[in-house]
Amino acid sequence: MLNELIIVRYGEIGVKSSKVRGRFERKLIKNIKTVIEGQVEVKQGRIFVYPQDFDGALKSLAKIVGIVSYSPAITTKTNWDSIKELIKIYIKEIIDEGKFSGKNSFAIRCRRVGEHDFSSQEMAAFCGSVVYEITESKVDLTNPDFELFMEIREDKTYIFHQKITGLGGLPLGTQGKVLALVSGGIDSPVAAFLMMKRGCKLTILNFNNHPYTSKSNEKILKIHQKLKEYSIGSKLKLYQINYGEYLQKCEEHAPRRMTCILCKSGMYQIAEKIAKEEKALAIVDGSSLGQVASQTLPNILATHHSTSMPILSPLISLDKVEIVELGKKIGTYDISIIPEKDCSAAPLHPETNSKLTKVLEAMKAINAENELEKAISSNKLLKT
Amino acid sequence: MLNELIIVRYGEIGVKSSKVRGRFERKLIKNIKTVIEGQVEVKQGRIFVYPQDFDGALKSLAKIVGIVSYSPAITTKTNWDSIKELIKIYIKEIIDEGKFSGKNSFAIRCRRVGEHDFSSQEMAAFCGSVVYEITESKVDLTNPDFELFMEIREDKTYIFHQKITGLGGLPLGTQGKVLALVSGGIDSPVAAFLMMKRGCKLTILNFNNHPYTSKSNEKILKIHQKLKEYSIGSKLKLYQINYGEYLQKCEEHAPRRMTCILCKSGMYQIAEKIAKEEKALAIVDGSSLGQVASQTLPNILATHHSTSMPILSPLISLDKVEIVELGKKIGTYDISIIPEKDCSAAPLHPETNSKLTKVLEAMKAINAENELEKAISSNKLLKT
Repeated sequence: MLNELIIVRYGEIGVKSSKVRGRFERKLIKNIKTVIEGQVEVKQGRIFVYPQDFDGALKSLAKIVGIVSYSPAITTKTNWDSIKELIKIYIKEIIDEGKFSGKNSFAIRCRRVGEHDFSSQEMAAFCGSVVYEITESKVDLTNPDFELFMEIREDKTYIFHQKITGLGGLPLGTQGKVLALVSGGIDSPVAAFLMMKRGCKLTILNFNNHPYTSKSNEKILKIHQKLKEYSIGSKLKLYQINYGEYLQKCEEHAPRRMTCILCKSGMYQIAEKIAKEEKALAIVDGSSLGQVASQTLPNILATHHSTSMPILSPLISLDKVEIVELGKKIGTYDISIIPEKDCSAAPLHPETNSKLTKVLEAMKAINAENELEKAISSNKLLKT
Repeated sequence: MLNELIIVRYGEIGVKSSKVRGRFERKLIKNIKTVIEGQVEVKQGRIFVYPQDFDGALKSLAKIVGIVSYSPAITTKTNWDSIKELIKIYIKEIIDEGKFSGKNSFAIRCRRVGEHDFSSQEMAAFCGSVVYEITESKVDLTNPDFELFMEIREDKTYIFHQKITGLGGLPLGTQGKVLALVSGGIDSPVAAFLMMKRGCKLTILNFNNHPYTSKSNEKILKIHQKLKEYSIGSKLKLYQINYGEYLQKCEEHAPRRMTCILCKSGMYQIAEKIAKEEKALAIVDGSSLGQVASQTLPNILATHHSTSMPILSPLISLDKVEIVELGKKIGTYDISIIPEKDCSAAPLHPETNSKLTKVLEAMKAINAENELEKAISSNKLLKT
């Protein structure tokens, strides 16, 4: 294909104040430039990318958050002859690729920015006749098999036929930093991704529950690597805490059914400390209400109490099928389902109706403050 | 159509312990019975509804959370002759309705529960030949135009061709109660709905900002009414606080740019008190990170601090377009966009980078504790 450039559309940035918009645009362009070599410019609410490696650029754009859609395109000067020539070349190429033929109906969608001596409709009709000359295809404006888009911006005209859906969200790094609790499970990597999608820089905190789980870091490293593909323009640190000893204390010195609650409470307390060191402003977790016995409202209340930092749970109202679908889309799901030993610290009958007072009592009984300090001192930067 | 019953499928309940499953099933059946008259029974992971008003029942099922899908069906005894007869009648009916003809390819999808002297494949082949005799349609198992489903459960066979997608989620009332902050805007009604979808009973709390907004309760009453359509089997109380006086104090005695932060902080504090009275275990709001200037991470941190109750924000990672789509789907969007005076207490340049210490200082300066007590005393039950 003879594509020369990629037109990139971004979303909500458009509705923000010009100051905020400028900041968001600059960040998005910076992120794009991190992974795509070539000229990148912003004009009238679009980003125009002229990549050196076209296919590579398309793959990269699919992983950059803040992009609503993008279109490989060709461009020419805004005049009847140039446009006619370009349409001819473009349509013939598409016919050669088998994507359009005389059997298909088509429509020309024309948008204009600037002053011209023709209307959008006139130009669309003119280009429609050019296409008809080549293919004798029928025009169908309501339900066409094939759409050809033209964007006429002042003296430049862009032609394309694809609008590839991007990840959406806001440019990474425009929303400050959050600390995401991520395990090798299905949910938490998706939650972490969703906050990146919404513009947050991420630091990942993982808890290694060995000997209650396998000691291996294989899965969490793979998940980190996968999430890093989206962390374009920002670092993605992965910290890990040895948590087995703390869990052992929970098991030994507190009611057995409370282990999961004490585990989660301890995680939040550790997360708060590390978040502060990392200058992160919130904790992110993969909680989904009612999905497992430990994620009930009473348990959420009793565990959230252990930190004064906001806990953001983007999956809170999602069904498992929705979470799985997202995990498949971003590529973490296949890693998450690699078989692994379940955490053997989890009791057979976990508490589903925690009372805050009981949790506080139990935390005291296990000397949690001290034990959590020990756990924190095991904190290790596994990856950046 | 000669449908006799509706087969109802539910989701995650299936993976839970038998005790939890039983409780969820009973709740779902109870909710169904609240709005559908007729026999309702549960068997082998499905609910069978024999409604008196068939069309009414279909409409009701579309609004019951916890239902994954449902199928209008007919039933007969599990034997070759009865099944053959029923298939004939069913297919002819569908042909009469114009939904299937000899021009369409088809597939029979057969599932069995129990012991039978035939396999699912044998029965599907047999029924396929019955259909072929009538229509001479081609069988296409991979990409058929029309699918006929058979569920053979012991001595009963069910036949249907539609699987209507339900709302998903968990049965309303299985997850305890939350207090949802709901305004006349687009986001918060969607957030409230999503928590209902995930099984929570809801109490709504609305703040009337008059004289900074219109005094009229028209929109919030309409939104309450719309959400009530989904609150099947549970009450949906709507409380309202007169908040104008508190906002006036914020405007007069604190830095102007902090009004939105102080407004939100005050809301959470009031919400916590009312939540406790209502025995709700969490506060739900419509926050979506970065959507408006006041929903930044520093602001979330500074406002969450005002309550020790969990704040659940199911929209936190969603884009506006996603929220709008959900609002349209549940029918709140059309109400939310009814024109209304914007809140004139909102400053031109709201603080986006709140410091907790400054917020606490400002709360002191406006004598917030006292002012919020006054606001709480204005609490009124608008609707049930």
